[in-house]
Amino acid sequence: MHTSVSLLSQTAVKDLVDTHIRFYCEERKGQALEVGERYGLFWDTIESLILAGGKRFRPYMIISAYAAYAQEAEVPDILPAAIAQELLHSAMLIHDDIIDRDTIRYGVKNIAGQYQSIYNAHAQDEVERDHLSLSAALLAGDILLSDAHRLLGNVNRPEELINRADEILSRGIFEVIGGELLDSEAAILPPGTIPAERIARYKTASYSFISPLTMGATLAGAPNDEVVLLAELARHLGIGYQLCDDLLGVFGDESQTGKSTSTDIREGKRTVIIEQFDTLATDQQKERFYQLFHRMDATDSEVEEARLLLIEVGAQSAVKSHIELLQNKAHDIVARLSVSEESKTVFYNLITQCLEREG
Amino acid sequence: MHTSVSLLSQTAVKDLVDTHIRFYCEERKGQALEVGERYGLFWDTIESLILAGGKRFRPYMIISAYAAYAQEAEVPDILPAAIAQELLHSAMLIHDDIIDRDTIRYGVKNIAGQYQSIYNAHAQDEVERDHLSLSAALLAGDILLSDAHRLLGNVNRPEELINRADEILSRGIFEVIGGELLDSEAAILPPGTIPAERIARYKTASYSFISPLTMGATLAGAPNDEVVLLAELARHLGIGYQLCDDLLGVFGDESQTGKSTSTDIREGKRTVIIEQFDTLATDQQKERFYQLFHRMDATDSEVEEARLLLIEVGAQSAVKSHIELLQNKAHDIVARLSVSEESKTVFYNLITQCLEREG
Repeated sequence: MHTSVSLLSQTAVKDLVDTHIRFYCEERKGQALEVGERYGLFWDTIESLILAGGKRFRPYMIISAYAAYAQEAEVPDILPAAIAQELLHSAMLIHDDIIDRDTIRYGVKNIAGQYQSIYNAHAQDEVERDHLSLSAALLAGDILLSDAHRLLGNVNRPEELINRADEILSRGIFEVIGGELLDSEAAILPPGTIPAERIARYKTASYSFISPLTMGATLAGAPNDEVVLLAELARHLGIGYQLCDDLLGVFGDESQTGKSTSTDIREGKRTVIIEQFDTLATDQQKERFYQLFHRMDATDSEVEEARLLLIEVGAQSAVKSHIELLQNKAHDIVARLSVSEESKTVFYNLITQCLEREG
Repeated sequence: MHTSVSLLSQTAVKDLVDTHIRFYCEERKGQALEVGERYGLFWDTIESLILAGGKRFRPYMIISAYAAYAQEAEVPDILPAAIAQELLHSAMLIHDDIIDRDTIRYGVKNIAGQYQSIYNAHAQDEVERDHLSLSAALLAGDILLSDAHRLLGNVNRPEELINRADEILSRGIFEVIGGELLDSEAAILPPGTIPAERIARYKTASYSFISPLTMGATLAGAPNDEVVLLAELARHLGIGYQLCDDLLGVFGDESQTGKSTSTDIREGKRTVIIEQFDTLATDQQKERFYQLFHRMDATDSEVEEARLLLIEVGAQSAVKSHIELLQNKAHDIVARLSVSEESKTVFYNLITQCLEREG
């Protein structure tokens, strides 16, 4: 299949998306000022957070999938859908930070963090200030979630395709909400109640991989069996991406990932690595491991001992093998897609980027 | 203008809407169980909360406005829009309860309240339990907000009208988020920074009155100047409704409203009544009033003294006059609408119901 939509680089997509996010925030800010000055300020905090980071990987995926199947349409036709994916992502990050009680995102203050500073001068005490800051973050996520839906209405494609895109968006939201719930409950339910891969499937793969790839192809009018293949590809990518994340969180190179490799062990995060450990370890190894795991006061050498135990029993290599399996499956799917060689290369590169991560 | 859409009573609308909310929740629950058992349980809490109360006043308004202008279409054609209004309302109540730290709604446990019980057996401590419960409520509001948009796609009207309905929904959400923000900030900013009527306009009038009435007329294909008139009518209704609420919160009959008439005074809620008091009172009256107002430990007789001061300076009657003015304006608008006498009666009854409230 030949395509007339030129493939954009990730940098080009980021520039394009960031420009349009600026337009979007400016428009919303203008409307917000009619409601009240304080609502304008609120949009400043949203704009500064969204532009503080993010690779615009979801917009890149939707545009790549669209380009792979579109015959005559142009990227600007579906740009609102790409921005919608990014607004949804921001909404989810903002609400996820509330659930995780984080005030930092992309190395800067998130919405709640910014509002802590704004409310400092006014609130009676810290509890009041923090609660109001979280409330502002709650509202910010709400409007971005709503606007993700709204923006799809601006896509310049046949109504029927836009409706299908909205169904895809809705399904992604429905699934990520389920994933968030399972993830937050996994922390208090007995180990094993909620398998980590299920959380990865719904919290990570769904709205971040399945939605963008299938929405791009759908808006291009791709045949249904191609969309089904892309959903399968996206599921492997998303789950694999999360597994890589889990490996990096324990065995990564902090200088490259910028993330601590002891936090997951100290906080007792029950990733697939730990599930593999439980399956493979002897009772004696388990006894020792759980003396070290999920202890905020564990020393660096205790964390290192836990890490070595995970390697020794083969938990690390089991997860690595699983990622390789997903990678092979993903490759097989791309080979079967009815797209140009150029687009296949884009998809192969996506696989490498998601599943061979060094940081 | 004659209409072929039969007017439904409020009771008939409530029955119809409740039946469809049940369908909606059952469908979502079935899909949720594919994600995980715990996600199914989550939908049980949502269903039980939505069905625990609510007059379905927003669906009644959208259906009434639709019936006033529709020529051939039938109520079932726009039922998804009526359900969408109700889901949005539930989402807003759930998130508003998070902001207000309430765990009771309609006299029963809200989402956070239900999850406190569910998590009781699992959470390490109350802080953890309450935080996870609020997280579940946060997620519940998110999916209902998203589904409000999604349901509009099921409306059986021309695409162009559905797009306009989605714009109306989006605008209502944008404005209520602004209203919620102003309301939550009014509690800590210096008195007078954010006028109470502005909060009523955005937090109450917008999504609860302007959206349903204009959406109903829009979906019926009403001329634009009629939609503009309905928006004006809805603004008067919404603001007036809030003013009545404020009066009932201080001077109401507790046995009829079921709400305390001392809470607003003890909590120092800066309603329009207090703004009127500030304008009309002498320095001496103000000095005494502010010794009584916003004191959680005020005795019943102190609250009564504050109440009498509000009457004495004319704050109560000033607000009553303002409501009368809104009522007259609303009547004038209905008189100018190009709808059947039957529909005018429905709108006149709406005015009475919203602006002559005893409880």
